[in-house]
Amino acid sequence: MKDQTKTVLDDLIELFSPLDYSTTDQHAAEKHINNIESFAKQSHKAIAIYDNKVNKPIYMSEAYRDYFGDDIDTVHPDDFDAVYQSSIDTLLYFKNNNIESQIPMHRLVRKYRAKINNKYVVVIEHVEPIEFDAQGNVWLSRITIDISPIQTPPYNVDFKIINIKTGDIITLDYSSHKNRQLLSKREIEILRLINKGLLSKEISDQLNISVHTVNTHRQRILEKLQANSSIEAIKAASNKGIIL
Amino acid sequence: MKDQTKTVLDDLIELFSPLDYSTTDQHAAEKHINNIESFAKQSHKAIAIYDNKVNKPIYMSEAYRDYFGDDIDTVHPDDFDAVYQSSIDTLLYFKNNNIESQIPMHRLVRKYRAKINNKYVVVIEHVEPIEFDAQGNVWLSRITIDISPIQTPPYNVDFKIINIKTGDIITLDYSSHKNRQLLSKREIEILRLINKGLLSKEISDQLNISVHTVNTHRQRILEKLQANSSIEAIKAASNKGIIL
Repeated sequence: MKDQTKTVLDDLIELFSPLDYSTTDQHAAEKHINNIESFAKQSHKAIAIYDNKVNKPIYMSEAYRDYFGDDIDTVHPDDFDAVYQSSIDTLLYFKNNNIESQIPMHRLVRKYRAKINNKYVVVIEHVEPIEFDAQGNVWLSRITIDISPIQTPPYNVDFKIINIKTGDIITLDYSSHKNRQLLSKREIEILRLINKGLLSKEISDQLNISVHTVNTHRQRILEKLQANSSIEAIKAASNKGIIL
Repeated sequence: MKDQTKTVLDDLIELFSPLDYSTTDQHAAEKHINNIESFAKQSHKAIAIYDNKVNKPIYMSEAYRDYFGDDIDTVHPDDFDAVYQSSIDTLLYFKNNNIESQIPMHRLVRKYRAKINNKYVVVIEHVEPIEFDAQGNVWLSRITIDISPIQTPPYNVDFKIINIKTGDIITLDYSSHKNRQLLSKREIEILRLINKGLLSKEISDQLNISVHTVNTHRQRILEKLQANSSIEAIKAASNKGIIL
């Protein structure tokens, strides 16, 4: 559980890592905070602005603090993976469909359990990318969290991508979360090293396993991904969202 | 169906009718619109400000127009009664618990189906009373409508009252919608006329039925409400939210 969590977070950080601060407009953050402030105060809405590079909020409304305090572990442990996975799936969807330019037109909306005043409740969260670097990487996101009118089971995490102009609803027809389970943690680890250009000998040294074991893993990876070569396997895993 | 709809709407209008415009601050509306405008524009959020006296919005954000156009019949016909009933139940809850002064601390959040661009989708709506007359009657409400991350059945209407400071969730333990079904439409009609102080003869004249029929209805009403007198019946019906 803990390990899987780490993998999902690692992936998210990897997805945001190409972000180039030198090309971002530092005044934009201030502008967004100003735009939110009076509305957040007046409506007592839980709103935050996240810096995706450092994975931390740079602004939290009063209601956000009332609800979550300084607690960072607000997502229910059972929902944690799926919540972060939905962020990854969303970013991969934009990437794979070449609609980076349309990201500001879309909003991720998801339902999960979060800790409010030390009690887990079902919340509805909106994630809206609002600022980008010069390469179109998402820099700032606006997060809005509301308590859900539905507090009954099933407690599974639900998410949709909404086109905020048309109201069209995008349900992702693939789930990298499920695909990820196609390969074992060790197989994903090895595939990542292959993707970095490492040879079997170098991988065996790094992971402290025999070259024979590495090659057995390689064979199993190709079979599972129905690939004829390492290059094909990397492409397939990337398309399925298993590696980024 | 149509008739029942009328009853629910009538009740809502009745609840809002004591509102006294002469004691409201007409500049307040402008102030609220100004506070919302930049946030609504920037986030493309569907936000409206409703005047409860006339049951019409006095402000609609661009996104609100994008989603709903000039269509007023946006609520799914099967959800209509329950949606309006949730407004009534909420106002009755405040009334019966003498917490009118706390209304601005509470928000009604509900899930139902609404028509967005001519297609029914599940939405999450927030209703926040924001301005009152001198007697504490709700004058203006801010409405925010988002598409739900859950678009699957069951499609029943869900609603909760949220304490926006503490995040506490209030689930109403009575439902005037269910209680209402205790009495027939005719019985409710007669009980309302009794409540207005009309005698059986006057009721029979007004409804064009015999005095004997009126008295049979009276007897049935007392039985159903387990009341010993008309006064007791009116009290019971009022407590249960059957009449207002």
